[in-house]
Amino acid sequence: MRSASPNEAVPATTPAASLVFTTVLSHGPITRTEIARRTKLSSAAVTKAVRPLMEIGYLVEDVGEGARRAIGRPANPVRVDGSRALFVGIKVTGDAIIAVLADLCCRILTARTVPLSGRRPAAVLADIVAVLHDLLTEADAIGGRVRGVGIAVSGDVDRAEGVVRYSPFLEWRDIPLAEIAGTATGLSVTVDNDVRALTRAEHWFGAGVGLSDFALVTVGAGIGCGLVVHGRVVSGAHGVAGEIGHLPIDPQGPLCYCGNRGCVEAVAADPAILRDVRAATGLPVADLAEALELARGADPRVRAVYARAGEAIGRAIASVVNILGPERVIISGEGLAAYDLFAAGIRDAFTRSAFGIAEQCDLTTRPLPFEEWARGAAATAIQSFIGSITLRATT
Amino acid sequence: MRSASPNEAVPATTPAASLVFTTVLSHGPITRTEIARRTKLSSAAVTKAVRPLMEIGYLVEDVGEGARRAIGRPANPVRVDGSRALFVGIKVTGDAIIAVLADLCCRILTARTVPLSGRRPAAVLADIVAVLHDLLTEADAIGGRVRGVGIAVSGDVDRAEGVVRYSPFLEWRDIPLAEIAGTATGLSVTVDNDVRALTRAEHWFGAGVGLSDFALVTVGAGIGCGLVVHGRVVSGAHGVAGEIGHLPIDPQGPLCYCGNRGCVEAVAADPAILRDVRAATGLPVADLAEALELARGADPRVRAVYARAGEAIGRAIASVVNILGPERVIISGEGLAAYDLFAAGIRDAFTRSAFGIAEQCDLTTRPLPFEEWARGAAATAIQSFIGSITLRATT
Repeated sequence: MRSASPNEAVPATTPAASLVFTTVLSHGPITRTEIARRTKLSSAAVTKAVRPLMEIGYLVEDVGEGARRAIGRPANPVRVDGSRALFVGIKVTGDAIIAVLADLCCRILTARTVPLSGRRPAAVLADIVAVLHDLLTEADAIGGRVRGVGIAVSGDVDRAEGVVRYSPFLEWRDIPLAEIAGTATGLSVTVDNDVRALTRAEHWFGAGVGLSDFALVTVGAGIGCGLVVHGRVVSGAHGVAGEIGHLPIDPQGPLCYCGNRGCVEAVAADPAILRDVRAATGLPVADLAEALELARGADPRVRAVYARAGEAIGRAIASVVNILGPERVIISGEGLAAYDLFAAGIRDAFTRSAFGIAEQCDLTTRPLPFEEWARGAAATAIQSFIGSITLRATT
Repeated sequence: MRSASPNEAVPATTPAASLVFTTVLSHGPITRTEIARRTKLSSAAVTKAVRPLMEIGYLVEDVGEGARRAIGRPANPVRVDGSRALFVGIKVTGDAIIAVLADLCCRILTARTVPLSGRRPAAVLADIVAVLHDLLTEADAIGGRVRGVGIAVSGDVDRAEGVVRYSPFLEWRDIPLAEIAGTATGLSVTVDNDVRALTRAEHWFGAGVGLSDFALVTVGAGIGCGLVVHGRVVSGAHGVAGEIGHLPIDPQGPLCYCGNRGCVEAVAADPAILRDVRAATGLPVADLAEALELARGADPRVRAVYARAGEAIGRAIASVVNILGPERVIISGEGLAAYDLFAAGIRDAFTRSAFGIAEQCDLTTRPLPFEEWARGAAATAIQSFIGSITLRATT
């Protein structure tokens, strides 16, 4: 295990350095010239940001085999040295913890899935600590050092304060998770909303690479949305953003758990689909798998439920597109398993409700397993880490 | 009239220089230290951006009366020298042109309102050219030089291309207005969507100063919305953004001119209110003023129409807030004249539909006369100008 050099210890970096680092992370190996073009920074600013990141060893330069090419030339490609630091990303669902050990390039080295022993904070914390120790042992075996942990939880999460304000699935309120987990493990912990964490991973490595404005819509137990506007993930002034599950789309619609009527989630999330399939068939349908089986068996009553859910999702997507005009909407989540049943409804409602040229927005589906959500949590930890390292030469 | 120094002629500035200039415009006189704090740029970057803007004379330093204080100290406040350049801002409505002559500080020096001689592009262009000549004469009398013109038009406007793609009120499609007006006047012309231009003015000088995330909702002939996210006005990847007038809020709602059912505009814009007041009363209500009079006379049927419109607006605002989580929503537009009739509906629907803590978003009303919209067009011209001047020392 390496020991940290002293300059890696404390706060303060420039926004330019963070921007340059994530640009290299997404696009590397990449020349300084290309970094300047993509970030719209001046060549001088890029050179200035790259230098200390190279001195610390997080960026390395590919000088090539010729060996006659000198270090520091603008035409030499630069990349992140993944081996220089390790991170853990954790996604907490209502039933399980999915954890990954990732390197500084956010490549997944190993992954774990463990069932939750309970949903109360103390139980979840114990599970988190157990899986962390397991991954720290793994890190030791590799000879790397874990420099940060990211934890992604659904609901209203205040990243800056490290607090889970409200998580409906876990029934948590105002849990200072970053502090508790940090104290328990001695590691630097960042918490964030799970969809925002996944959106970050998509922005850096997935279908959002190179886009300055896109939306990621997740369909499943809830209907979520992560947004990138002007190249950055939107968090909302009060920590709430992307709540498309609670867009009011029908004054006559079913009652939602939030107290309002006709929310998107009250029509299109898993529990709503299950409720409507039971009501439509009169059958004691046990779970979503059974509902899906009935629909695949071409039961028109069940297919109509899915079609209606698809329409609600399509209207929600049109709302996002009319308001923000993103370049792309990525549709993901466990709900993709039933996408063939949703697809026509989504497409029809979107086309009908998108205003004018906004209809040209690219709608695309992408299966993203829970490991990717955990990777998003690791990306969040990397972002916090890079934001907090001291870059002596730039200050 | 001053002649331009050669370094003012051609393209390319740094984003940092533009950011510093608009920060001084909004907050000046302001010290370099405070600029750095607000822009999150390093002190060195601020000093570097300020210097050439001072050399060109757009920024000046208040050295104070003591005269012992030296130029260039970080503690000396810096401000924009308004007299260094003039701009014209034009707002085109369906009936009139509102034009202002503004200085580099975007202070309105004089304003004109002229009725449109027609809505066809040639007629509007002739009116624009006439009002421009009038204001250029005024500028000559002051001894200033007009360096740019901004034209704000409602609808789908592509600022980068200078094209009005679609303006429902003017019934224009694909009019290359910037080029036509530029050729006719010999001036540099920027066109933009009118609500976005007004949002820019509010961001620089109004209720959005210092906010990185806010929404401006305009109520009247249409229902519009300008958005600032991460400190910048949102334009949308395809030029469409802020179209809250076409959010689908009720599948059983009235048909909208866009072809969809239950759009916000189909319930809450002026024509919809007039239609519904006529239907509710059976009276041949001539115009909105008469409808308003009936409502003020406490006709419950008419008041119910306004209440329903208020509810639709409240649901639209809640949608924006649930998706973006802005710090503030500013409500403006000619519709404010009936705000007392809308208010309860807006507030109730917003509170009901806003998700969790998003409800804490600050809702505020602000009357913004058409001169302010024209000022927004002038602000857009200033932004284009500052973005295009060469700052020799920073490149």
